[in-house]
Amino acid sequence: MSAKSSLLNYACPMPRMDHEFVVLGHGSGGLLTYRLLDQFVFKALGSDSMKAAHDGALLNLSGKIAFTTDSFVVSPVFFPGGNIGDLAVNGTVNDLAMCGAIPESLSLSFILEEGLRMEEFWIILQSIKRACGEAGVEIVTGDTKVVEKGKGDQIFINTTGIGKLHHGANIHPQNIRKGDRIIASGCIATHGVAVLSVREGLTFETSLKSDSAPLHDVVLPMLDEYKCDVHLLRDPTRGGVASALNEVARSCGLGIQIDESALPLEDEVKGACEMLGLDPLYVANEGIFLAIVEGSQVDAMLELLHKLPKGQRAAVIGEVTEDHPGQVVLEGSVGGRRVVNMLTGDQLPRIC
Amino acid sequence: MSAKSSLLNYACPMPRMDHEFVVLGHGSGGLLTYRLLDQFVFKALGSDSMKAAHDGALLNLSGKIAFTTDSFVVSPVFFPGGNIGDLAVNGTVNDLAMCGAIPESLSLSFILEEGLRMEEFWIILQSIKRACGEAGVEIVTGDTKVVEKGKGDQIFINTTGIGKLHHGANIHPQNIRKGDRIIASGCIATHGVAVLSVREGLTFETSLKSDSAPLHDVVLPMLDEYKCDVHLLRDPTRGGVASALNEVARSCGLGIQIDESALPLEDEVKGACEMLGLDPLYVANEGIFLAIVEGSQVDAMLELLHKLPKGQRAAVIGEVTEDHPGQVVLEGSVGGRRVVNMLTGDQLPRIC
Repeated sequence: MSAKSSLLNYACPMPRMDHEFVVLGHGSGGLLTYRLLDQFVFKALGSDSMKAAHDGALLNLSGKIAFTTDSFVVSPVFFPGGNIGDLAVNGTVNDLAMCGAIPESLSLSFILEEGLRMEEFWIILQSIKRACGEAGVEIVTGDTKVVEKGKGDQIFINTTGIGKLHHGANIHPQNIRKGDRIIASGCIATHGVAVLSVREGLTFETSLKSDSAPLHDVVLPMLDEYKCDVHLLRDPTRGGVASALNEVARSCGLGIQIDESALPLEDEVKGACEMLGLDPLYVANEGIFLAIVEGSQVDAMLELLHKLPKGQRAAVIGEVTEDHPGQVVLEGSVGGRRVVNMLTGDQLPRIC
Repeated sequence: MSAKSSLLNYACPMPRMDHEFVVLGHGSGGLLTYRLLDQFVFKALGSDSMKAAHDGALLNLSGKIAFTTDSFVVSPVFFPGGNIGDLAVNGTVNDLAMCGAIPESLSLSFILEEGLRMEEFWIILQSIKRACGEAGVEIVTGDTKVVEKGKGDQIFINTTGIGKLHHGANIHPQNIRKGDRIIASGCIATHGVAVLSVREGLTFETSLKSDSAPLHDVVLPMLDEYKCDVHLLRDPTRGGVASALNEVARSCGLGIQIDESALPLEDEVKGACEMLGLDPLYVANEGIFLAIVEGSQVDAMLELLHKLPKGQRAAVIGEVTEDHPGQVVLEGSVGGRRVVNMLTGDQLPRIC
């Protein structure tokens, strides 16, 4: 598979292990577990505190912290632009950033399926390490379980994160008011379409790649500069922009109006959505966020975002209104208005 | 199944849901996810902070905290004495206690298999709530994913916990010295044998029940009274007492000698182990801990433990020696000595 083989040049050579595949004994808590951790997982992650941690890690913390958890079950495990390992790190880093926090420490818990290739596990571990380096976070404690073949799907990962709240952050739906503007930090629907393109066998026709990335380096400069004028931040992952904005509208009791022609969208993603019959508003994102911000500051914020590598395609996509409270309404690019509901059914299962 | 039906009298009536079984759409991030959380999960757990939490929870913390994670994949999900829900809460509460911390906040992440009965999920949620109440912890943030039928096994749960370090705690393998004594806080092998008895269809022949329980209320009084004379605490879960003590011996570089005749063991567990060909030293525990303590204080500590409901069967099972560094040696009850190694292979998969 091309997505995987491009990752085979991993930085650190894989240690020689007795087993080519994960076996149930690797989850026994006995000798094989000990060896898997000591000679493989800790080697890949190179985390001293994880190695020292017996049943948990000790951290020195003070003040307000954010605490967030996510389990990752993406299928396929390897996709263009990433794999379940970096996705799991970036996903939790981003959940912390959405709380207005500076990501610091992660826990890492694996559920491995018997028969997972050690080499694939090694690549995933390498991706985890690289993603942690990029986001400036450390894995401080972990767990590894193994389930029988047919009782899992290669690998599931839980990452749970701790971050220190940014001094200027005051992120809450209650802060949203009429006239607030909605920013999308980048092009929508890229991650979901990239994962789906592998499943549908479209990889050779497109160069689409997931945009999965840590976003704290976009969020924190906004908070440094605009503090509590950033009213809410949202990660439009599963359910896409439409579901995330519906949740926002419900929780603040106001209406949201979005402008179809303003939605930033790569041509290739647009084309793939048309081919696959997907509405990009409902496709999962892993490399962008939505910010609901004080209206009078939106131009200045956009200018800041455009200077950042991950914010170049940032756009104002809508605003908060007192009309249609609790609802999201789309102004069509060729005229007309329609209510945009939450995703119903399961358009794209296991996208993260 | 008797283990499950005995739990059917749940405290809080199950809300009426459109689906009798979990469907993929419950993990879509859209309307079905929203309803599952709002009308089912949050109703069962009754946790306001979880409901308010968007992408994470905000906590006020100061000082040294412990941070620990565990994924639970026990099979069967319902077993005599508990289910995966209370096991997941107790397991993480105990990992925090083993760090010398006072358990405070948990995250809760589900991986549900398509087709899981809503009623079973409700029972598990009720057990989680009850276990949190008993341990005095709060679920503050969570996540729910759904995988296709055949890609999971009913339900997997990750719990990640935060606790405040006890002021008197100084728990580290480096503190262990020659002459330290080893206490088992209660009877060994009970949980593993109870789970296995269901798998092997022995439930009608025995009244064996898992002893899964929160242990902070045994650990904290020890730390209140004996502080840094408690050198190390260990939860002998997967791999059992033998694997846990081998890890201890390796990490402190000293030898450990245990006395077979001193091992506390229920007659019924002993009988079941003989019938199933299991060595109780390798069977998983969820309701006891091991403490390596200052030798001169061991009698006083034992007296304290015997006064606590969960410590009545506490016993001194061995001591730390300079002989055979890194190894665990058993003095047989009928004479003779043998080296006890870490569990090799997979005697009892998916016991927690």
